Amino acid sequence: MVVRMNCPLPNSRYSAITMAHGGGGTLTETLIRDVFLPAFGQPTPSLLDATPFAIGGGRAALTTDSYVVQPLFFPGGDIGTLAVCGTVNDLLMAGARPIALSAGFILEEGLPIETLRRVAASMRAAAEAANVRVIAGDTKVVGRGAGDGLYITTSGVGEIIAPGGGLSPERIRPGDAILLTGDIGRHGMAVMATRHGLTFSPPIASDCAPLAAPMLELFTSGPPPHCARDLTRGGLGGALCELAQSAGLDFEIEETAIPVEPSVRHACELLGFDPLFVPNEGCAAIFLPHDQADAALACLRRHEVSARAALIGRVGGRGGAVAARTALGTLRRLLAPSGEQLPRIC
Amino acid sequence: MVVRMNCPLPNSRYSAITMAHGGGGTLTETLIRDVFLPAFGQPTPSLLDATPFAIGGGRAALTTDSYVVQPLFFPGGDIGTLAVCGTVNDLLMAGARPIALSAGFILEEGLPIETLRRVAASMRAAAEAANVRVIAGDTKVVGRGAGDGLYITTSGVGEIIAPGGGLSPERIRPGDAILLTGDIGRHGMAVMATRHGLTFSPPIASDCAPLAAPMLELFTSGPPPHCARDLTRGGLGGALCELAQSAGLDFEIEETAIPVEPSVRHACELLGFDPLFVPNEGCAAIFLPHDQADAALACLRRHEVSARAALIGRVGGRGGAVAARTALGTLRRLLAPSGEQLPRIC
Repeated sequence: MVVRMNCPLPNSRYSAITMAHGGGGTLTETLIRDVFLPAFGQPTPSLLDATPFAIGGGRAALTTDSYVVQPLFFPGGDIGTLAVCGTVNDLLMAGARPIALSAGFILEEGLPIETLRRVAASMRAAAEAANVRVIAGDTKVVGRGAGDGLYITTSGVGEIIAPGGGLSPERIRPGDAILLTGDIGRHGMAVMATRHGLTFSPPIASDCAPLAAPMLELFTSGPPPHCARDLTRGGLGGALCELAQSAGLDFEIEETAIPVEPSVRHACELLGFDPLFVPNEGCAAIFLPHDQADAALACLRRHEVSARAALIGRVGGRGGAVAARTALGTLRRLLAPSGEQLPRIC
Repeated sequence: MVVRMNCPLPNSRYSAITMAHGGGGTLTETLIRDVFLPAFGQPTPSLLDATPFAIGGGRAALTTDSYVVQPLFFPGGDIGTLAVCGTVNDLLMAGARPIALSAGFILEEGLPIETLRRVAASMRAAAEAANVRVIAGDTKVVGRGAGDGLYITTSGVGEIIAPGGGLSPERIRPGDAILLTGDIGRHGMAVMATRHGLTFSPPIASDCAPLAAPMLELFTSGPPPHCARDLTRGGLGGALCELAQSAGLDFEIEETAIPVEPSVRHACELLGFDPLFVPNEGCAAIFLPHDQADAALACLRRHEVSARAALIGRVGGRGGAVAARTALGTLRRLLAPSGEQLPRIC
């Protein structure tokens, strides 16, 4: 995302790190604005997503994400699946074809080596599904109590192939259609259910998956998106609030058009979560001209990972607010989450 | 390094991770051989250093390292300086010009934000010294007791500019000169002294620094090295044992030719360390034809970071062993460290 400098942010009343600083919400942005931007300087397009840079006469993108999910294993994936899919999807959201990944492992003394073996196998499977390889890595070990089993930081390099020099919020235009590649809320609820020993029927599995196949087809065969964003920390609502602010445009979405599995909806009601703000790991919002929405949906629906793609809304005029039309026909304003709704979800 | 498949390694009698698995020695290699290579597959030139890959018709290198040093601050640098210098130096060792860095932060709840601000400023200073920028990042927060203040994983992308398509142990030839860019042992002893509250006179400061200036001059103006290796975990001795095995050649070095600060030598004697195996963060071993050694030394000595560069040995014939001639004129065989001589040194 482009860091919002033009919108109200909590003042820096914190002198120490809180869990909320890791939530990917406005408090994370405060940290970026107050600590990282002054240090690393402008222009820094992003300290959260894939960033374009020039290499060998071409355009590439670099991204990194640290994974601290608990528990390490959950229905639909594990920390290794996440580490690869999250990084691959971040590259795709920048309009880049993933080329190479690296993985840094921070292991806590006492971690069963069999656990590491299972996680590495998951990373390989996810990398093969995205047609990319993990080519560099590092391993560090910390003593008992200085970690939590296993942390993985993956970085990815991709080649920007999307027409127009890559995707970005600045390219969103009034009238653009807002598409969703699939149903939302599965990753967050799958991890929460596992963490708290809850079982739902039907069981909820994370949506964790690489979006390479459909996104690469959109980049190469079209129609090319103006902007795309994977819906991780903060979920669909958090991503739309960020993008509306970055683009300086109002968005309006139809809640009834947003696919949510019944089991996910029930779990959210039970635990008091709004599905719109629950993290996903295999779902993205896509912005492109409204007259190309049907062609894009047809392309997305040809791929299993985005078979449930839907048109969920439209970009309006100048502003920066996100409104959701409810089943009752009323409009509610979506507000960016300030902190951590679901700690250590990725 | 190229992972050694042809040398004796400890059998995998461990079912759980020990501190020694993070030492960068033969136990780390066992982990790579038993867990990572089977998962990520061959050809994987390395899971520890910068790996070449093709992008946009050119050749690039990707590297990653996780930093878990304790304490976070020490004479001569801090975890931020390390995180940038280590990654920059890894790229240089592959014959690449550093282009872009990413940084993933894992913060423990309660970390003073001022600490993060100081570390970020150190990262910026180190990046400016290496003429590279941190362009992407990520922040995660874990609860108290699930971390140790601050862990940083940096990744780097560079463009391979060294003649001959990059540096590698396979390019080491019999008769090659072995150069050292500076004095050894300062980083390891500086961190150990700080950790244990020891003060030496004169005080010991880490050698933590980017080797960009001299290495880039060697790549562009020559003479170009066959191979170079920064002397981090395992120190000079560990690196030479790895490289001798990878190259399948014997090395012989002169201990009296290796610069070691008197304060470092005294600290090592006091604490029972062999300076040859103490980690460094701004020092490298360089291999190139013997008749080009003087020209390379002249180049290195023009730069402050490598002003104490020295010729320390020579590559012999087939084998894979490293011998050090002592001050007494006797030869001692150097053995690769199996595990962790100095835990959490980087």
